[in-house]
Amino acid sequence: QQQHRFTRQTQCQLQNLNALQPKHRFRSEAGETEFWDQNEQQFQCAGVAFLRHKIQRKGLLLPSFTNAPMLMYIVQGEGIQGAVFPGCAETFQSPSQQSQHRSDHRQHESFPDQHQKIRQLKEGDVIALPAGVSHWIYNNGQSQLVLVALVDVGSNDNQLDENFRKFFLAGNPQEGLVRGGQRQDQSQRQSRSSRGQHQEEEEEESQSQQQESDGNNLLSGFDENLLAEVFNIDTRLARKLQNERDNRGAIIRMEHEIQSPEEAEEEQREQRSQEEEEEEDERSEEEREERRRSRGERGSGNGLEETFCTMRLKHRTDSSFADIFNPRGGRITTVNGYNLPILNALQLSAERGVLYNNAIYAPHWNINAHSIVYITRGNGRIQIVSENGEAIFDDQVQEGQVIIVPQNHAVLKKAGRQGFEWIAFKTNANAKISQLAGRVSVMRGLPLDVLANSFGISREEAMKLKHNRQEVSVFSPKRGSQQ
Amino acid sequence: QQQHRFTRQTQCQLQNLNALQPKHRFRSEAGETEFWDQNEQQFQCAGVAFLRHKIQRKGLLLPSFTNAPMLMYIVQGEGIQGAVFPGCAETFQSPSQQSQHRSDHRQHESFPDQHQKIRQLKEGDVIALPAGVSHWIYNNGQSQLVLVALVDVGSNDNQLDENFRKFFLAGNPQEGLVRGGQRQDQSQRQSRSSRGQHQEEEEEESQSQQQESDGNNLLSGFDENLLAEVFNIDTRLARKLQNERDNRGAIIRMEHEIQSPEEAEEEQREQRSQEEEEEEDERSEEEREERRRSRGERGSGNGLEETFCTMRLKHRTDSSFADIFNPRGGRITTVNGYNLPILNALQLSAERGVLYNNAIYAPHWNINAHSIVYITRGNGRIQIVSENGEAIFDDQVQEGQVIIVPQNHAVLKKAGRQGFEWIAFKTNANAKISQLAGRVSVMRGLPLDVLANSFGISREEAMKLKHNRQEVSVFSPKRGSQQ
Amino acid sequence: QQQHRFTRQTQCQLQNLNALQPKHRFRSEAGETEFWDQNEQQFQCAGVAFLRHKIQRKGLLLPSFTNAPMLMYIVQGEGIQGAVFPGCAETFQSPSQQSQHRSDHRQHESFPDQHQKIRQLKEGDVIALPAGVSHWIYNNGQSQLVLVALVDVGSNDNQLDENFRKFFLAGNPQEGLVRGGQRQDQSQRQSRSSRGQHQEEEEEESQSQQQESDGNNLLSGFDENLLAEVFNIDTRLARKLQNERDNRGAIIRMEHEIQSPEEAEEEQREQRSQEEEEEEDERSEEEREERRRSRGERGSGNGLEETFCTMRLKHRTDSSFADIFNPRGGRITTVNGYNLPILNALQLSAERGVLYNNAIYAPHWNINAHSIVYITRGNGRIQIVSENGEAIFDDQVQEGQVIIVPQNHAVLKKAGRQGFEWIAFKTNANAKISQLAGRVSVMRGLPLDVLANSFGISREEAMKLKHNRQEVSVFSPKRGSQQ
Repeated sequence: QQQHRFTRQTQCQLQNLNALQPKHRFRSEAGETEFWDQNEQQFQCAGVAFLRHKIQRKGLLLPSFTNAPMLMYIVQGEGIQGAVFPGCAETFQSPSQQSQHRSDHRQHESFPDQHQKIRQLKEGDVIALPAGVSHWIYNNGQSQLVLVALVDVGSNDNQLDENFRKFFLAGNPQEGLVRGGQRQDQSQRQSRSSRGQHQEEEEEESQSQQQESDGNNLLSGFDENLLAEVFNIDTRLARKLQNERDNRGAIIRMEHEIQSPEEAEEEQREQRSQEEEEEEDERSEEEREERRRSRGERGSGNGLEETFCTMRLKHRTDSSFADIFNPRGGRITTVNGYNLPILNALQLSAERGVLYNNAIYAPHWNINAHSIVYITRGNGRIQIVSENGEAIFDDQVQEGQVIIVPQNHAVLKKAGRQGFEWIAFKTNANAKISQLAGRVSVMRGLPLDVLANSFGISREEAMKLKHNRQEVSVFSPKRGSQQ
Repeated sequence: QQQHRFTRQTQCQLQNLNALQPKHRFRSEAGETEFWDQNEQQFQCAGVAFLRHKIQRKGLLLPSFTNAPMLMYIVQGEGIQGAVFPGCAETFQSPSQQSQHRSDHRQHESFPDQHQKIRQLKEGDVIALPAGVSHWIYNNGQSQLVLVALVDVGSNDNQLDENFRKFFLAGNPQEGLVRGGQRQDQSQRQSRSSRGQHQEEEEEESQSQQQESDGNNLLSGFDENLLAEVFNIDTRLARKLQNERDNRGAIIRMEHEIQSPEEAEEEQREQRSQEEEEEEDERSEEEREERRRSRGERGSGNGLEETFCTMRLKHRTDSSFADIFNPRGGRITTVNGYNLPILNALQLSAERGVLYNNAIYAPHWNINAHSIVYITRGNGRIQIVSENGEAIFDDQVQEGQVIIVPQNHAVLKKAGRQGFEWIAFKTNANAKISQLAGRVSVMRGLPLDVLANSFGISREEAMKLKHNRQEVSVFSPKRGSQQ
Repeated sequence: QQQHRFTRQTQCQLQNLNALQPKHRFRSEAGETEFWDQNEQQFQCAGVAFLRHKIQRKGLLLPSFTNAPMLMYIVQGEGIQGAVFPGCAETFQSPSQQSQHRSDHRQHESFPDQHQKIRQLKEGDVIALPAGVSHWIYNNGQSQLVLVALVDVGSNDNQLDENFRKFFLAGNPQEGLVRGGQRQDQSQRQSRSSRGQHQEEEEEESQSQQQESDGNNLLSGFDENLLAEVFNIDTRLARKLQNERDNRGAIIRMEHEIQSPEEAEEEQREQRSQEEEEEEDERSEEEREERRRSRGERGSGNGLEETFCTMRLKHRTDSSFADIFNPRGGRITTVNGYNLPILNALQLSAERGVLYNNAIYAPHWNINAHSIVYITRGNGRIQIVSENGEAIFDDQVQEGQVIIVPQNHAVLKKAGRQGFEWIAFKTNANAKISQLAGRVSVMRGLPLDVLANSFGISREEAMKLKHNRQEVSVFSPKRGSQQ
């Protein structure tokens, strides 16, 4: 609750923003991982890292945790996620075993497996994960699973420096991958070098250079005899855990498919539409939460209370969840501390935007957050204006690019002809915007005389400023509008 | 709630403090704005910026917002302030229109204007404003309106760098003004240059150098065609909003006066004393708040909940609001999170001090805050002592100077012959002091034997230390006391 | 609740940790104070300072406060502590006076002394102290009193830079001592010099060099005439308070012993076992607190509310307080925001560990904190593993050494033949660990198929990983186990 004081020598000279592509790519057996350049000035200023996983069918992103809170968005496909919170009970029986088990009660079941909760993910889901909590993701869908993630390395929950760090529990991922694309010796050099130029070309990290190393999972750093003693296993198995010669990377192919919780249930139940069930799940989870909160049980928010065991990590951004909808313009869906309470601990939130062709998202500024925007589909034009009235960004952007809108800077988005969709991650659990135009804009809140005198216009003109645009946040295009 | 860890290379070598005058001055059509030097070491260390507005009669400080929480104090005069919170309703009808409207119900009223709440300000008021929330101030009094403001650029609510940034919604203020006196190209250079010497001479910023630029309000950075589409206005009016050739600066003269809420009401009501009404307003607002809080509605405090719509931004520091009063010494009034709850979100508080001639404010240290002191009247002597027992400041100070008392450093204030008044802004919502002398001092809390042995004095002497000064915080002068 | 954004140029290159001895030693009349090197990279990265006081029988650590929250642990001996919170009542009568007083009600008592609460300390106690709150410690036991303290200079509660600063209310301690071993001119130079090499040899700070200075307590920086006026004493006594020629240092010998609260009470009461009483005290304090909390009185946590007046500062870590106990392995006791609520304000916690010979503390990582470990007894082997699977520490450690386990890094502790005991200070009020092995480990939370595929092992082997070690956190050694 207190603030910190310190002397920052460096300045965030945000005179020129860029829409960026990923810089580093790491191929794995069953997918690839791409990182945006942490040394880019806009990422440095915002104190965030950004990455994208592409997980092939039957691919498993190895269990790992990160040194900072993370907010993910499923761009495409389906999958299963499991997160392991220390001290929480193993409340799920492995579905594949369970169904078999149930169908034949008497059969000797050799491995009745229990583990912590897993959840089904699909396109449009936002998933939150606290720093230091390990998780894995498995693609059980029919197509590639693509997800993007904001890693808030500038968060107070990260007590290390602002470098991205991923700690793998198993496997032997590339060394660059655990540091977000930076090699250990590089990170210091690079951070001091000139950051002015930004390189668009993506570097392909060769996997060969790290094959000599000792294995990059957490267990590989321990003495194998100690490891054997600790797990009460033989040394041979302990050595296997260190995965020294494993070259499958961070995303491996799984032989047996993992069944999703829904599939497992379905086998047991009468057929109901899956959509319905999911909605139900979501709702019942929310209700439970609300009851908990009304009893005042929500902790003071360090984000790792026992209630985490039952806390929701996921929120949908389907059109049925939209907060703002304009049939001629598009829709905005907000995921924040109010509808996904874990975000209060993580101090992150998200905004899903869909603009139809040529529609406009009302010009506004972010009051209390940076906004890190990933374009998920289509294209559009974005203008960003700084305190001295200069456009520090004015360009067309398209699918797959990331652009950071700094706190308090004004931004305007206009969709192109194919429409424009994005996911914006914001560095505040309850990020607020203040609009410059529209029905809930700052112009409406100002007295007419103040407007007229400030702009040096007539009262009639000031009236137009306040009232000509009656839509809320998503503006339909003018007839015959051109970008 | 977690703390952050980082390696600060720089040190705050506070071996020599100075009482400072403003460094940069910007003249406008109807007033002027002065900034203290952000590059001064004590401001850098405290992570704050400081400024003073002088607004002439009928002058309007243009609508703008700042990248950090702000705490203002009205040094002189009267005015009206309006703040625009996003999502809050337009609950006020423009008073001038309203009265006209009511007096003749049937008259066709061409501009029935509605806007957000406005409030009357007067000398002695403390006003709080969150980062990113726009506001304007209009001088509706008979004399110049003078206000000073602390801008907490080191606050967690500012996610940009620690440079002051002001975003104007309208007009064309000087470029230096939006950066607190620093030109954009300067800021980087200056911050790295030697900061040892401090220049007392105030620089007058010439207005000519920025006349060529494109306009410095937020709208001027957008494409005028987009602007026209967004507001649904014609391009000619859109171009007007960019105020390119406006040279009135940040404070402009208004032709029609804005009526204060009190004036508007008076016209409708029987005459009552204005003082009474204000007191009533203040009280009813506080009561409402208390009821709200007792129902547990106060949010978890990111400071931008819906309750902001009805939250008080203003607190009086009149003698009737004093917390400590000594008829022979003076008085202290505290404005903090308890009596102005919005400060809990802003993590700032204020202390108004009035010492009569030769009186003394008990020597103390600030437990959990820096104290940024602006001398509002008179003069006095201030001593500030660091951890190694050295006076890092010992000098006469006078009206208009700013001195920063760093956290934990001991400070003693003694009024001169004309008395001594100040407003101290503190970087904590509930700043606490620990006194070295007086009835609530640390000496009282220590056992006699500890005192006697620590100082190497007798128990009788230790008794004197604990009990000879019975006043609380404001000490009356010795008879015939000299500075 | 918001996070801060800034650009840290420096990196925490934790490629090599060291178990460290103190670097600076300051001898006083009745004890000595040792500081670990603040410039060591691991202390810089963790944002903490570390010190040890050795207080001889009848020695008094002078009243002082520190610029950051502090967590202390009594390694050996007994003592009395008094902390002085501003605005709290003087609720204790000095016991020595009190008992005398009661035994002869009519006797003229010349100095009936009242002061704030004092508390008895003994080996195994953890004591919390907020930034800026002054306290003193007196050794009333039969042996030397040894205590270690973590000073969280990186805490948000410290608004100065990250240098340790101690402000003495009395006496004339060495100048280096008030800065944690650094001389003022050094601190800037040193922090910029190469920090690669770490010097094991402890420097003895000569006391002579500071004898010329003016006195290092807070009062010595004030004008003696002002001081006389402020305390309403004569100038001769005021000059005495400045302790200019005092060369007793920070720990002085007291002539009259101070009686502990328990002793004082005992004289008045029938004999009961002291243990019982203490337990009772502890319990009744906790109960009171709980009642307070259930009434919702616990403040929003800036840590200096009125409730501090009655808040507990102390928690025992005796075996009777253990949270985890394994008769063949040892025990773990946790002191955190749940059982010592003041820690919620300080954002610190502690873990007391006792391992019997050859036992193992389950390998784990700290989810949300650094862990600063001081070895209190015995010896053992510690391994610490970073994100790329390298052991950045793998060595024997022994009594008196400090080693920092960075957040998220994996750590394994194995006791030597004499057993192994430590106190770990953690930079979070509710620090959580996630274990790699044992009954509550991450392996248990992962599905069998995920484990098997990730490590490339059979399902049978994965079962062993999950279930072979059934103990919770403290593992008994294998028969015939060797380090």
